[in-house]
Amino acid sequence: MSHDLDPSLSWLDALKFGADGTIPVIAQDAASGRVIMFAYANRETLAETARTGRATYWSRSRNKVWRKGEESGHFQHVKEMRADCDGDVVLLSVEQEGGIACHTGRESCFFYRREGDRWIPADPVLKDPKEIYAK
Amino acid sequence: MSHDLDPSLSWLDALKFGADGTIPVIAQDAASGRVIMFAYANRETLAETARTGRATYWSRSRNKVWRKGEESGHFQHVKEMRADCDGDVVLLSVEQEGGIACHTGRESCFFYRREGDRWIPADPVLKDPKEIYAK
Repeated sequence: MSHDLDPSLSWLDALKFGADGTIPVIAQDAASGRVIMFAYANRETLAETARTGRATYWSRSRNKVWRKGEESGHFQHVKEMRADCDGDVVLLSVEQEGGIACHTGRESCFFYRREGDRWIPADPVLKDPKEIYAK
Repeated sequence: MSHDLDPSLSWLDALKFGADGTIPVIAQDAASGRVIMFAYANRETLAETARTGRATYWSRSRNKVWRKGEESGHFQHVKEMRADCDGDVVLLSVEQEGGIACHTGRESCFFYRREGDRWIPADPVLKDPKEIYAK
């Protein structure tokens, strides 16, 4: 176990960012309770999330701010922000615009279910990705 | 976005482990729907999880296998294992023994809720940690 979060600090100072300045963020749908996404944020994008009420991440692969929904229209409106006991993970409870979090057009990015030795797509595609990103 | 998971591969080969050989794992309570824990696993501990049906992690801070519940008795019985679209995060749906996942004696490790500039403990302690680890 790492050291516990110090609740006497301001919320951003209490969080532990990794060596690359990022922290894991889990997004859970406030209505369905489903875990719909996992991404990373840094101090700046977390502050932006709190300020705007829209989930904003840090894309480690593209090395830039990722305003979720900016391309797809699938914004995430943050209802509640939580941190874990040691302050190194953030959990967002969100209202998912369009009911679609995944770039494949599914409700959740976690649509693969393990069955034996394989991952099986277990959730329906709600919207063709070509339609989502056709702009 | 990274490359999508290749479902034609065996489940362990389809997953993308980080440079340190680990992959993030989210544990969600199958009954309450709450996200109760976040940890890491490596190839070996994921295989053990699938084989035994008990959540087994890799502790990056202690650099060793972490059989959740081994010290606390709070084992996690895995009902379902999911992966996300790009295969670099695992989601476990678990039956949490004792109804307590957190070392602080709470149901979930995500018990801090942001209120303004602070993190406020928002969930009750169900069992004194001294009792949990007094063995």
